[in-house]
Amino acid sequence: MTKETQEGITVKKEENFSEWYQQVILKAQLADYSAVKGCMIIRPSAYHIWQEIQDDFNRRIKKFGVKNAYFPLFIPESFFQREAEHAQGFKPEVAWVSNSEDGERLAIRPTSETVIYDSYSKWIRSHRDLPLRINQWANIVRWETKATRLFIRTREFLWQEGHCVYETEDECDKETRMYLDEYKKLCEDLLALPVITGKKSEKEKFAGASQTLSIESIMPDGKALQMGTSHNLGQNFAKSFKISFLGEDGKERLPWQNSWGISTRLIGALVMFHGDDKGLILPPKVAFSRIVIIPILFKKTQDKVLKKAKEIKKKLLKHNPILDDRNYSPGWKYNEWELKGIPIRIEIGPRDIKKNQVVIVRRDNNEKKSVKISDIQREIEATLDMIQKNLLARAKKKMESKIVYVKDFSEFKKAIKSGKAVKAYWCGVRKCEDEIKDKSEGAKSINMPFDPPKNVDEKCFHCNEISSGLWYFAKSY
Amino acid sequence: MTKETQEGITVKKEENFSEWYQQVILKAQLADYSAVKGCMIIRPSAYHIWQEIQDDFNRRIKKFGVKNAYFPLFIPESFFQREAEHAQGFKPEVAWVSNSEDGERLAIRPTSETVIYDSYSKWIRSHRDLPLRINQWANIVRWETKATRLFIRTREFLWQEGHCVYETEDECDKETRMYLDEYKKLCEDLLALPVITGKKSEKEKFAGASQTLSIESIMPDGKALQMGTSHNLGQNFAKSFKISFLGEDGKERLPWQNSWGISTRLIGALVMFHGDDKGLILPPKVAFSRIVIIPILFKKTQDKVLKKAKEIKKKLLKHNPILDDRNYSPGWKYNEWELKGIPIRIEIGPRDIKKNQVVIVRRDNNEKKSVKISDIQREIEATLDMIQKNLLARAKKKMESKIVYVKDFSEFKKAIKSGKAVKAYWCGVRKCEDEIKDKSEGAKSINMPFDPPKNVDEKCFHCNEISSGLWYFAKSY
Repeated sequence: MTKETQEGITVKKEENFSEWYQQVILKAQLADYSAVKGCMIIRPSAYHIWQEIQDDFNRRIKKFGVKNAYFPLFIPESFFQREAEHAQGFKPEVAWVSNSEDGERLAIRPTSETVIYDSYSKWIRSHRDLPLRINQWANIVRWETKATRLFIRTREFLWQEGHCVYETEDECDKETRMYLDEYKKLCEDLLALPVITGKKSEKEKFAGASQTLSIESIMPDGKALQMGTSHNLGQNFAKSFKISFLGEDGKERLPWQNSWGISTRLIGALVMFHGDDKGLILPPKVAFSRIVIIPILFKKTQDKVLKKAKEIKKKLLKHNPILDDRNYSPGWKYNEWELKGIPIRIEIGPRDIKKNQVVIVRRDNNEKKSVKISDIQREIEATLDMIQKNLLARAKKKMESKIVYVKDFSEFKKAIKSGKAVKAYWCGVRKCEDEIKDKSEGAKSINMPFDPPKNVDEKCFHCNEISSGLWYFAKSY
Repeated sequence: MTKETQEGITVKKEENFSEWYQQVILKAQLADYSAVKGCMIIRPSAYHIWQEIQDDFNRRIKKFGVKNAYFPLFIPESFFQREAEHAQGFKPEVAWVSNSEDGERLAIRPTSETVIYDSYSKWIRSHRDLPLRINQWANIVRWETKATRLFIRTREFLWQEGHCVYETEDECDKETRMYLDEYKKLCEDLLALPVITGKKSEKEKFAGASQTLSIESIMPDGKALQMGTSHNLGQNFAKSFKISFLGEDGKERLPWQNSWGISTRLIGALVMFHGDDKGLILPPKVAFSRIVIIPILFKKTQDKVLKKAKEIKKKLLKHNPILDDRNYSPGWKYNEWELKGIPIRIEIGPRDIKKNQVVIVRRDNNEKKSVKISDIQREIEATLDMIQKNLLARAKKKMESKIVYVKDFSEFKKAIKSGKAVKAYWCGVRKCEDEIKDKSEGAKSINMPFDPPKNVDEKCFHCNEISSGLWYFAKSY
């Protein structure tokens, strides 16, 4: 027991989402603030989620021939100048190191396109070197001036960044989308998080990209969270970094590139979607422990109960069960493990033993069930599976309830004001987006989903010009 | 094919070890220099080794209840002041960030004792919170002024650092040694690297530690390489960072701590020991691919041969086989894959097919063997196992051949001058070590192995005072 967990969550998720979020993270011991402003400490139960994300994503990209590598933390200032849009986009948030001997400042990577493509320009000679697909897991620094929010906006965070180079535009387009689809699958299958996949607007795309695709979710407070991006870089960086290859025909050509990333921000989304007023709820697939066993101990029967509890633990080892035999009341223990989000609680007392059963309690919906000890492995597997599915279904429903379709700007403003995200036909023009943002307390385009209803005759909800398609708008993190 | 591999290694390992080492790393594409002075790029085949090290070590420490977490890259300057010896030891090589708003400089972590123990002082309240065992995998920056050597000395490198806190001195002592023993096992079992385990001298211990234990090897050039350390921190940091806990008796107590780390330096040791004049030799357990299949193609029979080669590849999928069907001569391909260190080559031509066999060639000793295709899985397993064992045995022998026992300082100087490491009875006193270093072109104490012959009456080889035991001395990386 540490100080943080002695007291439960003191606000309701519905009433003060922002305070609730912070309390869950601190009290469930997912993360802590650091003495350095804007930085965070990722504690073991959250780092466990990150490791599961790493393992899952490594398996996914291995199939496509992507290889992991590691590039330097430091980037010479001059590298940022080479791609003009990229430089402009990132300069305000770069942290600088003062040690360099030769006078040139060194940036701490805010993203690694420049330093990686400098190497690519040396490594790539011929069409035989393509496609080149490299990924790195790394820490990233962006010197944010906005307030810190744990996992969502901190000056340092962990991520992966994939960087691929292709002979043809077609391959590049196809794979830019393919990696995004893998992100969607990872979010849904592993983290039980629903996402919207689509294309970012001109205004919101990555600095230096031709096009940015993204996965996004609408959080329970109606704000959008960008959870991953896949950038089609076209030939922009190839030009600036002089990457070229000899084609089969012996001619010098410019290759096509993409880059794509997800970060520890996903852990923030997981907390926001799955947590409740009692605290965190961990999807079984990423829980550091899927089960806590709580023996109900009375003096006379405690040896027997404890012995049985240990037997049950042994049967369930693959789920990393915790047997909590500390000298606290069962109720106190229930609260602690609910706060920490363990998916299943097993209660076992003297009366259960007589009947050769235990009580299983689901964290996601509080359902209790008596289960024969002989059936326990099967029952636990089935229950974990149900919890994992229920979390996704529930989150999907929640997300959909937060989105309204609007026809005009007055509906738009009303929806945004009431804490919703909107879906609307929109022109896609930068100037129009600037105006919308100004007049709606900061709502911005989220993305244009890949499969909108094909209603091509619609007009922009704001400027009434011809629509480019159906878009999501929301305030965002 | 990229430029780097068109030419083999142009110097002999025996003749110019330093140049040979650099060529192997660059040409086998393990790493590359970065545009930032002193930094390196870890390319996929080396990063694969690092991932195998991570997986292996994660499995080892999980058994002991160590959990992974992640602490910030940045450390406030004032944290370094708190432990005086630590501050003095690290200050010369810290890189500083210039962004901080409140005037205090931020260091980029050269090691994380200070930032982690600041959190520990908040997290630890009671004996129930102990032992606390946390590990992190992270990048580290030390602004070295000595020349860069890939994997061995760069300004940024990757490592793990474990940080444990205990109620009692006894637990702390025991586990400090336990983690070191795991390092030894990892080096031997996974990387086929022989190591010496022992205690560092007062002069060479970690800044702020009570005692430092280390694993070290004597490289083929006679220089010692420190490959991992486990520091017994005593109560030094607990005092400076005000870490205390309430004991079972209700009294406030100071805990005991250790910290321990290994880094990407291990990859450098692997290259130095196992490589030869043809290039790299990868121990099978960490090879990105354990087998390359090279079909011998003639116009008339090539379809048949290629088909058989593909069948064989399928049978050996678990070893990540490469089927090299590029349009180069077999000899050219042999050279390339030998350079890159693939443990086994399978050659298959029309004559082999007739006999239902292939030729297996071992990278470590060039032994060729014809093997029936029906036996291939078993033969490959057995051969990989032999290679792994042979590499360790050979490296051990090499290391031992580089160590001589000396009785006095004149023998000592002669041995060091001839490129050997020495074993000698020594007093262990700092002043004596300073003098030895000055008078022997920089040779220093490596460690005092745990199991020396118990010859307690020996005198120090240099100052003739009473010996503290048998020590290793060498020039070192």
